[in-house]
Amino acid sequence: MSGQSYSLKDLASKVNGDIVGDPNLIIRSIATLQNASPGCISFLSNSKYKKFLSNTSASAVIVNRENAVELQAAGIVVDNPYAAYAVISALFNTYPNPYIGNEINYFVHSTSSVDESVIIGPNVYVGPNCKIEKNTIIHANSSLVKNVHIGRNSIIHPNAVLGSDGFGYAPNKNGYTKIEQLGRLIIGSNVEIGAGCTIDRGAIDDTEIHDGVKLDNQVHVAHNVILGQDSAIAASCAIAGSTTIGKNFQMGGLSGVLGHLDIVDNVMVGAHTLITKSISKSGNYVGIMPAQDHKDWAKSSIFIKRRKI
Amino acid sequence: MSGQSYSLKDLASKVNGDIVGDPNLIIRSIATLQNASPGCISFLSNSKYKKFLSNTSASAVIVNRENAVELQAAGIVVDNPYAAYAVISALFNTYPNPYIGNEINYFVHSTSSVDESVIIGPNVYVGPNCKIEKNTIIHANSSLVKNVHIGRNSIIHPNAVLGSDGFGYAPNKNGYTKIEQLGRLIIGSNVEIGAGCTIDRGAIDDTEIHDGVKLDNQVHVAHNVILGQDSAIAASCAIAGSTTIGKNFQMGGLSGVLGHLDIVDNVMVGAHTLITKSISKSGNYVGIMPAQDHKDWAKSSIFIKRRKI
Amino acid sequence: MSGQSYSLKDLASKVNGDIVGDPNLIIRSIATLQNASPGCISFLSNSKYKKFLSNTSASAVIVNRENAVELQAAGIVVDNPYAAYAVISALFNTYPNPYIGNEINYFVHSTSSVDESVIIGPNVYVGPNCKIEKNTIIHANSSLVKNVHIGRNSIIHPNAVLGSDGFGYAPNKNGYTKIEQLGRLIIGSNVEIGAGCTIDRGAIDDTEIHDGVKLDNQVHVAHNVILGQDSAIAASCAIAGSTTIGKNFQMGGLSGVLGHLDIVDNVMVGAHTLITKSISKSGNYVGIMPAQDHKDWAKSSIFIKRRKI
Repeated sequence: MSGQSYSLKDLASKVNGDIVGDPNLIIRSIATLQNASPGCISFLSNSKYKKFLSNTSASAVIVNRENAVELQAAGIVVDNPYAAYAVISALFNTYPNPYIGNEINYFVHSTSSVDESVIIGPNVYVGPNCKIEKNTIIHANSSLVKNVHIGRNSIIHPNAVLGSDGFGYAPNKNGYTKIEQLGRLIIGSNVEIGAGCTIDRGAIDDTEIHDGVKLDNQVHVAHNVILGQDSAIAASCAIAGSTTIGKNFQMGGLSGVLGHLDIVDNVMVGAHTLITKSISKSGNYVGIMPAQDHKDWAKSSIFIKRRKI
Repeated sequence: MSGQSYSLKDLASKVNGDIVGDPNLIIRSIATLQNASPGCISFLSNSKYKKFLSNTSASAVIVNRENAVELQAAGIVVDNPYAAYAVISALFNTYPNPYIGNEINYFVHSTSSVDESVIIGPNVYVGPNCKIEKNTIIHANSSLVKNVHIGRNSIIHPNAVLGSDGFGYAPNKNGYTKIEQLGRLIIGSNVEIGAGCTIDRGAIDDTEIHDGVKLDNQVHVAHNVILGQDSAIAASCAIAGSTTIGKNFQMGGLSGVLGHLDIVDNVMVGAHTLITKSISKSGNYVGIMPAQDHKDWAKSSIFIKRRKI
Repeated sequence: MSGQSYSLKDLASKVNGDIVGDPNLIIRSIATLQNASPGCISFLSNSKYKKFLSNTSASAVIVNRENAVELQAAGIVVDNPYAAYAVISALFNTYPNPYIGNEINYFVHSTSSVDESVIIGPNVYVGPNCKIEKNTIIHANSSLVKNVHIGRNSIIHPNAVLGSDGFGYAPNKNGYTKIEQLGRLIIGSNVEIGAGCTIDRGAIDDTEIHDGVKLDNQVHVAHNVILGQDSAIAASCAIAGSTTIGKNFQMGGLSGVLGHLDIVDNVMVGAHTLITKSISKSGNYVGIMPAQDHKDWAKSSIFIKRRKI
């Protein structure tokens, strides 16, 4: 890739680790234990992969204190190898601003303000009344529709839509009257919004995505949702309107939360599950219909439909 | 925001309402009862919020006849406060054409026709054989692939894809032969297509989205679906190919309908539900596996798998 | 549309079919049996539509040998009418390169290589370290983020995102540390990626989409997934990280597969189903909670929650 290289000493100092072997060893990339080649650093954080430690071609391995004795060559010893790997991965990030050096077309409405440190990709649309703070990145082909505020150090991945119209209509005799969506979307700092996500602005009050939230790709968040700090939501989930969710919420992929609910802090929801009621007790909630061989499923399915209460 | 203001008399006349208090009172924005400040108009449509009526700082409140006696200050009395709120919300819409005043790049194929009243956002792609009628809006970063007709007064939200290739292949010895998709996508008038939606054009005959349909964000509609007038579909749903759906269909988020089905008028489907058979009787259909605490779910799950028919 | 026309002889030779009627008959388009008009060719592949054969206005019909005796007018007799229709559909494809004749803005990073035969639509973003091989098409408003390789004859539909950041974080005391995603996304030849799909590049090793894979719209594939040859996945599905899937996998819409699983060749998964365990036996797996009238569902639902193991 782009040729960054670091001494083992450099890397150890970034993660407050103890060096095993030559501190001047040069590391050029990160690899898994199985696929490493000389010049690579690897890490062991899941005991399932311990079997690969003795045969790896990695020049160095990040390990915890317990596994330090099993190092075949050089290494860095830390309390939490996975956290250390995360820190070191950033050093090998190539092209943190990939838009340098090409002419970029994007649109910022005259009523919006974008800090000069913000990186904006090609074809980004920033509509009226938006404000984007320091060191945030808005990647290619994203649309910030209206009334969107984004804090510092956040990342909006490509083709996301922020501040879109909430789904609000009043029924009338001939169909529906559209309710104009006059609120804002307030996104905090250190937030990541995945590729292809859609987050609506509020109808009157605001939609809020608090600091540290991480959304995977293709997540939908409806108008007037409040999503608490450090929540992490996997791909293809949807949260319906006016639901308030506490801190550290986690949700597996393809799951949803109905509207107008209250969810306390520290709730985990499994994949492919729908939350239909407010949750007042932190914990782990699941609602998957078990997948089975088609014949067995057909029998279970008939059973469920026949038995009532 | 942009400084529209209206007298109470102006607003009352828009919704055929009766004025309580000073007709010349100036209203500058809309707010909820809880968050209103002086200069705001609010509304009471859900009895759950009646408790906020006595303490609101709103200068005026839209209420029904029953609640008119409880008005603390000025107000507008109507039969349906929610419908009145919808009408008045449009008056406070800022920047109905947010693309004015910037240079816009978009693409319209030489075989396509776009009425001069149509608003097109930046980076919109309009491919061959498309026709877009009066007063429709195509928002930023949307793609109209091929053979797409859109009626009047419709809104296509950002990053939607219309007229994409249907998912059609004929199996062959070595995999699949692509079936070119030669049909059209016909979208009616007063339709809204949410951000990030994808709607395929027909394989041979057309895909049809009838007048007044509202799609929330990230909805997928496959080729040759016919979706009846005034249907409303919540976020992250999918409708499979060649299914015909009647008028006033409603579907909660993350739900789906299998292909080649017929659904009559006036069917409502809950969230996170799959419809696997044609529906010949209007009504309310649900197929959610209840979410439970993980331990309880595990027991229910084993029970379902063990008991057959 | 664009006025291609073919003699019946021309068409029969493309599909190795036997001609019934005038070999010089001119065919101008394809239509279904029900909606055909003179000048059209139609096909009969599903016996359900046999009733339309006697009254169709099609000038010619593609049929199998069994149905050849029922032809009212001209036709082409083949072993597999559906496969023949697929081949002939390509002849009537209008504007295979719809981007000719307009000025196109797109972005290719200086470190990336795109074969000169590749068709690129407007507003496409191709970031660092990408390689796109012969005759592949990248449609409008798509983003190739980083480290994306695409083989020959593949089609990327509009507004897709390829090579996006995988959803990887290491928990720390104050939230999460981002894990930079350093791997690649390797897409084979003859692949189609639907509109609005998102496919993440690998964290360290690569994400792989093998030859002949077809993804419908709005499918999400997480980092380090390996998806086997000729797999076909319907709309709005999601596959979680590090799952390895064999050849000929098929999955209905709105379904998912959890992470770190192994799925053998020739597995079919129904719509709206979650796969939570590795699958070592090919076959057909389903996990749908049956949709019912709301009252019946409520009873079944209480029953499920009360009965444990």
